[in-house]
Parts: sequence; C-alpha cells; structure tokens
Amino acid sequence: MAKLMGYLGPPGTFSEEAAMIYCADLPFVLKEYPTIDKVIEAVERKEVTLGIVPVENSLEGSVNLTLDILSGITGVTKIQIWGEMIHKIRHYLMAHPGQKLSNIKEIYSHQQAFAQCRLFLEKTLPGAARINMSSTVEAAKLVSNNINKAIIGSVRASQLYRLDVLQGGIEDDQESNYTRFLLLGLDDAPLTGNDKTSLVIGLPHKAGSLHAALGVFAQFGINLTKIESRPIRGNFGQYIFFLDIEGHRKETDVITALKELTKTTLFIKILGSYPRSN
Amino acid sequence: MAKLMGYLGPPGTFSEEAAMIYCADLPFVLKEYPTIDKVIEAVERKEVTLGIVPVENSLEGSVNLTLDILSGITGVTKIQIWGEMIHKIRHYLMAHPGQKLSNIKEIYSHQQAFAQCRLFLEKTLPGAARINMSSTVEAAKLVSNNINKAIIGSVRASQLYRLDVLQGGIEDDQESNYTRFLLLGLDDAPLTGNDKTSLVIGLPHKAGSLHAALGVFAQFGINLTKIESRPIRGNFGQYIFFLDIEGHRKETDVITALKELTKTTLFIKILGSYPRSN
Repeated sequence: MAKLMGYLGPPGTFSEEAAMIYCADLPFVLKEYPTIDKVIEAVERKEVTLGIVPVENSLEGSVNLTLDILSGITGVTKIQIWGEMIHKIRHYLMAHPGQKLSNIKEIYSHQQAFAQCRLFLEKTLPGAARINMSSTVEAAKLVSNNINKAIIGSVRASQLYRLDVLQGGIEDDQESNYTRFLLLGLDDAPLTGNDKTSLVIGLPHKAGSLHAALGVFAQFGINLTKIESRPIRGNFGQYIFFLDIEGHRKETDVITALKELTKTTLFIKILGSYPRSN
Repeated sequence: MAKLMGYLGPPGTFSEEAAMIYCADLPFVLKEYPTIDKVIEAVERKEVTLGIVPVENSLEGSVNLTLDILSGITGVTKIQIWGEMIHKIRHYLMAHPGQKLSNIKEIYSHQQAFAQCRLFLEKTLPGAARINMSSTVEAAKLVSNNINKAIIGSVRASQLYRLDVLQGGIEDDQESNYTRFLLLGLDDAPLTGNDKTSLVIGLPHKAGSLHAALGVFAQFGINLTKIESRPIRGNFGQYIFFLDIEGHRKETDVITALKELTKTTLFIKILGSYPRSN
C-alpha cells in the first residue's frame, strides 16, 4: 500500500515540485497541507508517514518556524529529521497561451522570486510593473485568465494553470539558487555511512563558550556543515545554536563526541540523523 | 535641513513602524522604497543618508537578501552597518469600524503573522478562514472596505486604513517576538564603548577550521553575539560565516584579534561597527 507524504501546498509550489522529485521512484502519495505547522502536526498524528518542509532559503513559508518547532521552542515534539533534499530552484516566466514577451505589462510573483530574477527583469522587461503576491501559485491562478500579464514561478505551475513558458531559467544566479528541504518522520533514518546529524545546544553567553563546545568536534575530527545562533530574547544570558555535523548518532565517534559535549553545554537536543544530500 | 532615511514600504509595515520609532527624536524624514535592495541602492547613491532594513525574523522582505548584499555575494558594495534596532512586534486584530469579533468570517494577513498568532486564532476565532496576503498592508487595504473580514497587522495600519482594533497583542509569544533591523550608511558609526562589529569570514571546509577561528576571539575575551554559516553551493570546499562580535573595530583588542584572525581565514570582510541595541 502506498504511504503518504505531507507537503506545503497548494500544488504548483516549489515544495510540491521538490516532493514530486523526491518521491519519483518511491511508493508515496503526496498530501497537501496549508502551512508548515500543519505538515508537522500530520506527521506527529501519523496521518502521513513523512512530511517535507523547506528549511533554508525558501520562497514559501517561514523557515524559522520549522527550526522552532523541531527544537521544541514552541512545544514538545517527537518529530525527527529523516532526510534532507537540496532542490535547485529554477524560475520560469509564464503567461496566458499565445502571449508575447513584448506585450507583457504586469508581472505577478512572490517578492523573493522577483529578487532572484532582478537582473533578468531589468534587462528584458524594465517597463513591466511588478506586483507582489503571497505565493507564486496565487500569481498563477490570477494570471491564467488574464492577457498582458505574466508570472514568475515553478515550471509545474505552467502545467497546472495552463500557462505558456515565455522563458525558463531566468534566475540571476543559475549556479547556487537552491532550497534545502527536510524530510520529517517519527524515527531516525538508518545508518548509511554518509550521514549527518542535526542538533540544538544551549550555551552560557560568555566569551569562549562556543569555542569550547566546538573543540569537542575538532578533537574527534567531526566536520560541521552548518551552525546558526539564535538569541533567546527573553533570556539574555543564554544562546541556542543549531548545528549539523557529519556522521550518524549511532556511530562511535559521534556517540563519544556528543557525550563529551554534555560537559560544556546547558542542554543538547538531537533533531535526527539522516543521509547527506550532496 | 532634515536628512532622509529610506525604509521598506509601503506605510503600515513593521519596517515603517520601526523607522518611525527610531527617528522619533532625530531630524530624519522617512522615504519609502518598494524592496530591500532599492533601500540599499538609495544609500549607495546618497539619495538618503541612512536606510533601515529587516535582518532577522522578518515578516517583510527577504532577510537573506540583506546579508547577501552586505557581504558582497551579489556584487561589490560600499555599504556599512551604522546601527541596529531590536523592534518588538505586536500584532493587532483589526476590522471595519463597528464590526464585532463574533461576526468575523475571514481573516487576511501575512502567513508568518498567522503563524505568530496561531494559539490566539485557534482559541478565539477557530471557524474563521485565513487568507494569506503578500503583506499585512495589502490585507489592510483590502479589508478597510469590507465588513465580516478582519486583518492581523501593525497598529499603524489601523490609523492608515481607518480600521478598529478588535484586540491588541494577540501574538502567542508576547515576550520574544522581535525583529532585528539594521541601519545602513556609508560610514562606521562612532565609538561609544558599547559597540558591536559585524563581519563575514571565509573558511576552508575541514574539521576544526571554525574552532581555530573562534579561538582567536576566546583568546582576547571577545564575546560573539551571532554566528551563522552559509554554504556557498557552487563551491563545496568553502563556507562563509556571518559573525557579530562585541566591540568596535577601532578598539585595540578588536584590531589585534581581527589581525590575528587573518591567519586562519580565507578572507575577512568587516560589515560595520555600531552601537549595540539592548
């Protein structure tokens, strides 16, 4: 029987695009949710087996929210990170079928999509007005019945809303425009030998406390692949840090390093171990 | 003569609210720009003396964009951080004058505002539909002429769009719901004795490289107040880090530490020294 994967809808978002690619060869059926927290709730209630949510550089949803829920800032959660997916974002300029580039007077999209296509727009459509929408899909819905208007969004939106692609790959930075998605479940993923572990730690706010904590990983030769501090504004004496390290929590080096780390931290919460996406 | 300060418009955003509070006792006149990069361009062209842009936990604009522009990822810039402002975000539920809470069937706002008021909405208005808009101001414009609809946004929007406040301070986390704004100019701010320096450094991607770099600050007793890694996806061997440290770049300890830091980094770019906002 096919399992369910929850994603941040509606259809046509980059989140759906990423989910479709991830599930291309897997027995999953996609199920849409309106917000990131609804996706996470569905995983917790076992309504879906996995959920997929954006976690870095996203055009959709609040990325902070994902980390806050996982870290337990907003309440206790049993959710574990089960995997990650780095999805290349390609923007398409689309319009009502038959429309020509030279007739476009208005472009509808998400503000961040405009920002990512700034040089293209300045060169190709300098006179067209840009109207911010809450998502690229809202833009697609609106424009599918309007001539003289275009949208910027995922190529998937052109299929769903019967739009013609005027030009593809219009993002300014064609090499490094990626969004990172997390797959969420109720368990760790099995050890593969090329894994990552995400954790959140609390440290006292004093000079050298982070240096001491990172010393543990240096000592065991464990690479960091991400670090992000987060001020706890109600609590000025304390900082939390989101860390990604190389290795699975079931590997000896990681076990020993994490045990050692408890000596220099106020708390440690492991968010999950999962295969690296390169 | 009054100087100009550029901000991310339109009027009624939390960015305008923050700018108004910052300038309350200063001889600045506010000037609106449609996007974060237009604010920054206006500072570079000396069209305005200072610009104010969100940089953390924002409901408006892309926060990544601010850091990318400052760090020079998107091109060379002369912009310096001139100051910071931590602005407490308070959400208001507002509607057409005379409207009652019990009649509200639809609520319009930004997706992140909904996320920040989730518990209030579930308790007080569980049956009302939530419609995502591209900004709280777009929501206010729409709702000012519609009964049975409400918006969530800044209290400033109620003045600008003649809305009644049904309830104020409806955010779930009333203690720690802050947005950090940066003041941008073409120079460093003068030394006050309670300053901060923002910088971006490049490091080779190997175990211990961050530990070694942070050792320099630990050695000089310099506190970090922020750290954030950023993968350069086109360049897998290298990471960049955004750091905020305590102290001004004109202070002896900071000068010596930054000189020492050049030995362990691929590059250092100082983004500015400015008074801390506590």
